[in-house]
Amino acid sequence: MDIKKYQEKVRHFVSERDWEQFHNPKNLVMALSVEVSELVEIFQWLTLEQSNAIIQSKKEMKEINDEVADAFIYLIRLCDKLDIDLEKAVHEKMKTNGEKYPISTSKGIATKYNKKVRKNLKCI
Amino acid sequence: MDIKKYQEKVRHFVSERDWEQFHNPKNLVMALSVEVSELVEIFQWLTLEQSNAIIQSKKEMKEINDEVADAFIYLIRLCDKLDIDLEKAVHEKMKTNGEKYPISTSKGIATKYNKKVRKNLKCI
Amino acid sequence: MDIKKYQEKVRHFVSERDWEQFHNPKNLVMALSVEVSELVEIFQWLTLEQSNAIIQSKKEMKEINDEVADAFIYLIRLCDKLDIDLEKAVHEKMKTNGEKYPISTSKGIATKYNKKVRKNLKCI
Amino acid sequence: MDIKKYQEKVRHFVSERDWEQFHNPKNLVMALSVEVSELVEIFQWLTLEQSNAIIQSKKEMKEINDEVADAFIYLIRLCDKLDIDLEKAVHEKMKTNGEKYPISTSKGIATKYNKKVRKNLKCI
Repeated sequence: MDIKKYQEKVRHFVSERDWEQFHNPKNLVMALSVEVSELVEIFQWLTLEQSNAIIQSKKEMKEINDEVADAFIYLIRLCDKLDIDLEKAVHEKMKTNGEKYPISTSKGIATKYNKKVRKNLKCI
Repeated sequence: MDIKKYQEKVRHFVSERDWEQFHNPKNLVMALSVEVSELVEIFQWLTLEQSNAIIQSKKEMKEINDEVADAFIYLIRLCDKLDIDLEKAVHEKMKTNGEKYPISTSKGIATKYNKKVRKNLKCI
Repeated sequence: MDIKKYQEKVRHFVSERDWEQFHNPKNLVMALSVEVSELVEIFQWLTLEQSNAIIQSKKEMKEINDEVADAFIYLIRLCDKLDIDLEKAVHEKMKTNGEKYPISTSKGIATKYNKKVRKNLKCI
Repeated sequence: MDIKKYQEKVRHFVSERDWEQFHNPKNLVMALSVEVSELVEIFQWLTLEQSNAIIQSKKEMKEINDEVADAFIYLIRLCDKLDIDLEKAVHEKMKTNGEKYPISTSKGIATKYNKKVRKNLKCI
């Protein structure tokens, strides 16, 4: 996927509508959070099993596709405004994550995964 | 950016730690929203001007890079789990957005952009 | 609970620290969303059963109490800034919700509850 | 405001519709975040000045009243499910906040308020 190409498309889209004035990082981060929340809304009342099974539902998958796309559009728009190299950022963060969660101490250990909560929920 | 390559990397990362059990769409969407909220936290008290100026601050930009990366990682992980073709989704959504906001009626018209709020705020 | 008393306490707290300058409705809504997201973070990897069982965990309940309180503080602060009578708003919204979801058509019908998703997930 | 009275009303509302099955803490926290996000949506494209001026707009204030009420309803519902004494939680958290941000070191010092970001933005 050519991220730069899509950033250019979004930039053009925004410019044509004279919306550049609204696209500062603060507003874009809010807009991103609103789009992601529309994804949350879709899943809020589902069981974990139902959330897996949603893939079979054409109608819901159309909606999820749309919300995922909107979230991505705001994310690359934010990167464009702040001169962030998304691929480089992802590459570096994955390295950091690897060091933060070594396999030896993380493997199959739920308590490590969500240290805040699971530590005291061993019984569950 | 080779999205599939990064999805494969994340899949490997998750599998090595035996975290697959936690990665259903409902949980992933929650995790995505938490990462995006960490972006919101950075900008919450800034003025719009300060949010633009943040690009000059190395320390904050490092943090923003990290949060953007985490959000992206969960987004493509969700796409992986739900078999979503991100590029196709973005392509289609941008077409829909173009139809939803025609240039002729949207250009420079803030009331169109956020119809809910700006309509009654013309005086501002 | 004397909401006005707590709004006065928060007002005093903010004023003493000269933070009034940051407390416009836009920033407050962002801050509220950040606090709520800290609640989401606690629950993100839990099963629904584990989320019910969390009540047995003293440590997590302390954290949840704190986050719930922070969310409430920003909510009543926002009401204070926007001259919203919280009790009146809740009273009216509950009436609206009652009309929106009549018992006869809503009772035990999950598809009604989350119409967007459940409609096509009858099999689950 | 008699929080217990409203919790009882919500409990009754939920029970009449047989929605108790959906109201575990994980789902309720998601629903709370969705309601708060609807508040964020209202403010996302506004300037800070416009967000202050929104109080003059009857139509937007009606909407904000509704969203604030929905957020509050889910918040006290969550407290009900997790046996949280909201007033006690708020009382204790305000004490903690007072210790966390002493007046002497916080007063008028924006860098203290949002230490993460403002520290390096002194010039702004």
